[in-house]
Amino acid sequence: MGTTQLAPVPVPEPKYLHLRTVLSQALDSEFSVGEILPNERELAARFGVARATLRQALEQLELEGRLQRRRGVGTTVAPPRVGVAVGAPGDAWPGAADDGWEPLDSAPAVPPASVADTLGTDREEAVHTVRRSRVSHGQPVAAEVLYVPRTSVPGLSAIDAPTGPARARAVLRALNTLEPGHRENAVELGSAHVDDARELDRLPGAPVLIVTTRWVTGDRTAALSVATYRADTCRLTFGEAGDVRIHHGPTASHAS
Amino acid sequence: MGTTQLAPVPVPEPKYLHLRTVLSQALDSEFSVGEILPNERELAARFGVARATLRQALEQLELEGRLQRRRGVGTTVAPPRVGVAVGAPGDAWPGAADDGWEPLDSAPAVPPASVADTLGTDREEAVHTVRRSRVSHGQPVAAEVLYVPRTSVPGLSAIDAPTGPARARAVLRALNTLEPGHRENAVELGSAHVDDARELDRLPGAPVLIVTTRWVTGDRTAALSVATYRADTCRLTFGEAGDVRIHHGPTASHAS
Repeated sequence: MGTTQLAPVPVPEPKYLHLRTVLSQALDSEFSVGEILPNERELAARFGVARATLRQALEQLELEGRLQRRRGVGTTVAPPRVGVAVGAPGDAWPGAADDGWEPLDSAPAVPPASVADTLGTDREEAVHTVRRSRVSHGQPVAAEVLYVPRTSVPGLSAIDAPTGPARARAVLRALNTLEPGHRENAVELGSAHVDDARELDRLPGAPVLIVTTRWVTGDRTAALSVATYRADTCRLTFGEAGDVRIHHGPTASHAS
Repeated sequence: MGTTQLAPVPVPEPKYLHLRTVLSQALDSEFSVGEILPNERELAARFGVARATLRQALEQLELEGRLQRRRGVGTTVAPPRVGVAVGAPGDAWPGAADDGWEPLDSAPAVPPASVADTLGTDREEAVHTVRRSRVSHGQPVAAEVLYVPRTSVPGLSAIDAPTGPARARAVLRALNTLEPGHRENAVELGSAHVDDARELDRLPGAPVLIVTTRWVTGDRTAALSVATYRADTCRLTFGEAGDVRIHHGPTASHAS
């Protein structure tokens, strides 16, 4: 249970990690947000390292949200990540007023098997799917597919449009007439699929944060959302005020 | 606001994304959890793709938690990610009974400037730091540094040991005598620093999920935790039951 951690054997710091620290300090002192970094050849020469070492350090800083690689632009200094509230107070249904999401489209579709199993629907059964998009501070931050079993919104069949944004709003309105349930969230690492990448202005395969939300009434799942958040620009916040902003750098050294 | 998404121009799927789908199906049908994949040369030959394409597809599946790359072993089929509850019910202080964390060490240290600013301490001022480790299902899943300003636990100075695990337990005990406050969490992408990587059995620079938790009493931050979770094996759950497990694959195709 980690007792071997008490007296860790000192390991020499790999070269790219040292470079990461040096670069990070240079970003703080010499560059401003949005500024384009010199190209890899110049940077490698300036810091006296191999290109491969430089690239590893740049990748680290990109994961940490300090740098952004943009196609056709180069590597720029990233603005601080924006706190995006996930799990608004009150366990409201999706589509409640001011939930920050824009309905784009809706259509009946057979969901992936794992979604059907969570919803408790047959694997061949079509459910309502709603595509929504979330914009924060003028930037697209998340793309969502919401799955709603037909039994959750039985009154909906009377509505004319079978697909499209009007249909999306109708599904959300119908959900909001239900008794409130409770909500469960999970966050995990993922990679941007083609549709999400296009919507979020990212390259396919870029790391993203996948937030799965289940709305539960009684003992059944009334709706399930799978939302893909940009990991480069977003910090997901949970709780009331929720905007904790901490620069994740090497931790303070212990005196022991 | 995303209205251009309604009739997206079809973009040909990049080769590695198609390969990702094919490989994912092969993992489901031909391989079992823990099994070692054939080497890159063999896989590239079998699927008729270039090594670079194969590597991109493998990286995607690694981000998605389907594959694990292990030094000296090769690429293996990953077990499903484990749901780890973050934000236990009741907004308890860190160190409350059964919070899942093992205290390892404690020492006074000057925290990073951004931590000091959040705590409202002077940038030169030492605070109590506590290192903790979290094990779930027999596996290390997270490494934490907890920062506690001296003013949060004024009674502590009477205790003898200035550092070490006994000191860590004393700091946590002192916190738990305070009136309960409320807690705010944030999750973001990061990369594993050397210490964390060693503790979590990962390579330095590997993607991780950084959870920052702030315990607030009145209008001040009584304690701040920066926890590094393995992103390859963990899904972070928020809420009561909280174990939503959804395979994140390509979403259902819409009929529109």
